[in-house]
Amino acid sequence: MMKAIWLENQEITLRDDVPIPQPATGEALVKVRLAGICATDLEMAHGYYPFTGVLGHEFVGQVVEAPGEDIWLEQRVVGEINITCGRCELCLMGRGSHCEQRSVLGILDHDGVLTEYITLPIKNLHRVPDSVPDEAAVFTEPLAAALEIQEQVLIRPTDRVLLIGAGRLGQLVARTLALTGCNLEVVARRKIQRRLLRDCHITTVSEADVRENKFDLVVDTSGSPSGFLLAKRAIRARGTIVLKSTYKGEVNANLSTFVVDEITLVGSRCGPFPPAIRLLENNIIDPKPLISDDYPLSEGLLAFERAGQPGTLKVLLRPPDIN
Amino acid sequence: MMKAIWLENQEITLRDDVPIPQPATGEALVKVRLAGICATDLEMAHGYYPFTGVLGHEFVGQVVEAPGEDIWLEQRVVGEINITCGRCELCLMGRGSHCEQRSVLGILDHDGVLTEYITLPIKNLHRVPDSVPDEAAVFTEPLAAALEIQEQVLIRPTDRVLLIGAGRLGQLVARTLALTGCNLEVVARRKIQRRLLRDCHITTVSEADVRENKFDLVVDTSGSPSGFLLAKRAIRARGTIVLKSTYKGEVNANLSTFVVDEITLVGSRCGPFPPAIRLLENNIIDPKPLISDDYPLSEGLLAFERAGQPGTLKVLLRPPDIN
Repeated sequence: MMKAIWLENQEITLRDDVPIPQPATGEALVKVRLAGICATDLEMAHGYYPFTGVLGHEFVGQVVEAPGEDIWLEQRVVGEINITCGRCELCLMGRGSHCEQRSVLGILDHDGVLTEYITLPIKNLHRVPDSVPDEAAVFTEPLAAALEIQEQVLIRPTDRVLLIGAGRLGQLVARTLALTGCNLEVVARRKIQRRLLRDCHITTVSEADVRENKFDLVVDTSGSPSGFLLAKRAIRARGTIVLKSTYKGEVNANLSTFVVDEITLVGSRCGPFPPAIRLLENNIIDPKPLISDDYPLSEGLLAFERAGQPGTLKVLLRPPDIN
Repeated sequence: MMKAIWLENQEITLRDDVPIPQPATGEALVKVRLAGICATDLEMAHGYYPFTGVLGHEFVGQVVEAPGEDIWLEQRVVGEINITCGRCELCLMGRGSHCEQRSVLGILDHDGVLTEYITLPIKNLHRVPDSVPDEAAVFTEPLAAALEIQEQVLIRPTDRVLLIGAGRLGQLVARTLALTGCNLEVVARRKIQRRLLRDCHITTVSEADVRENKFDLVVDTSGSPSGFLLAKRAIRARGTIVLKSTYKGEVNANLSTFVVDEITLVGSRCGPFPPAIRLLENNIIDPKPLISDDYPLSEGLLAFERAGQPGTLKVLLRPPDIN
């Protein structure tokens, strides 16, 4: 049996009676070394998505069993969160994150990482270079999600880019957008968010000072309809708005303005792990300053409370060491 | 004085007391040879956009005055509908159709073409090759609007493409999409629409038979929220929806589905004239079968009534000959 942060009927509990999962063929059993709490976890606890099981999908771990794949034993790994069939059309197109039969770590039909052990298909695993500490590697998944923007949209070094929202994901998106050399401004509501961006020499702007119809690209990580409306005000004709976070409920959109101004709207979700690992390995991105707090798994409920407080960035959970 | 179809307070009248406009420097006076009624004209008559003046923007004409630009005299021409400042940032980016100071022929601050004479900047004019009859040239503007899709989005010859709507604009979009070699299906509600598409060897499909989550690209020319909802059902994850017509009122959109399925939404409006003229000149596109009726300008109100009847495609208006 193991400890786990369990979601059921929109209620989070800390259980200590969850069976250690058994790896099936092609799967590994991974000991979680460090896990992160993400906005999606918080939203799920508020009923964003119906799920019963162990929460969490951001982690770095160590392979403890890999039947028939001994080469993976003891490897320190991160893991892609979409568990795919590998046979459907979308998988064969190389778009496994959209596999129609997918389960998703800690989100859909697969127990998550806010616990001691998880199983994942070996094809989901990526080795973590020795030079990348756990406290950075645990950001691989959200950093990959940030890079998905560049996977979908061409960002020119001369583009004027507005990022709306500078929370957990927004901070990573700000850092990866800045790497393009673009003319970036970030709407950051909180002082701590602005300070972290200033430390990276990234310009912040207040919502009231956002110039209208001036940005070639607007990325919305705010997760709120007001962020989307600001994006529509800021984008220029023929510009592109990237939606990087899910919204609670529906948004009234006047689609005619998209036609008249020829706006492109791009939804963006999970991203590629290998480039995220490269940016951590060569230290081009250092996510460690985004850590707000670090709790033992046994204090998981406290950690969730902390993560839900306004202005908190990344809260980490640390299972007990096996050694 | 000249005859004109006049819009004022959402009422269309046929006037015969409209002064013949005077070309300013850089403008030409163009005698309208043939004009078309477009869905936008019908919507404007129903209050889609507040405008007072001569309606209409689809035309082929003949230059009768071109102060200081004699080379244009007597030329048969079509004309781009956005009258731009040429100096603002969007004009300098080559995106004059989004000029922030623009007026638009028959739509915004500039009298339109359902009359005998118009003025247009000479830079808006394009010569019509002798081999293209007026009855084809009058389709240049909507054909250019159809080609705007390829200007914005890469369509692969192997893409599965669904076109929703096969009215005036939809018929042209179907024909230009088919030129890409893509695997095209068109949702056409009316028998006449299906017959016209069948004549071009284009596959039609009933709304009920549209496969869900299967299309790489969906183009919506339906102009109705139900078309948009069908587009969302038909598009595959990571696919692109092109909105090709304006909607009355707002549409409730669940933006989270755009994020989760990483859908791209592209608004699309006016397009490039030169390729439209090339496709007419080399007879790759023949729009003449789309003509439902042809009225003299003096019967303009009857023509509008005809254009508003369900199933009517292009209705043309013919001013009196000057010769």
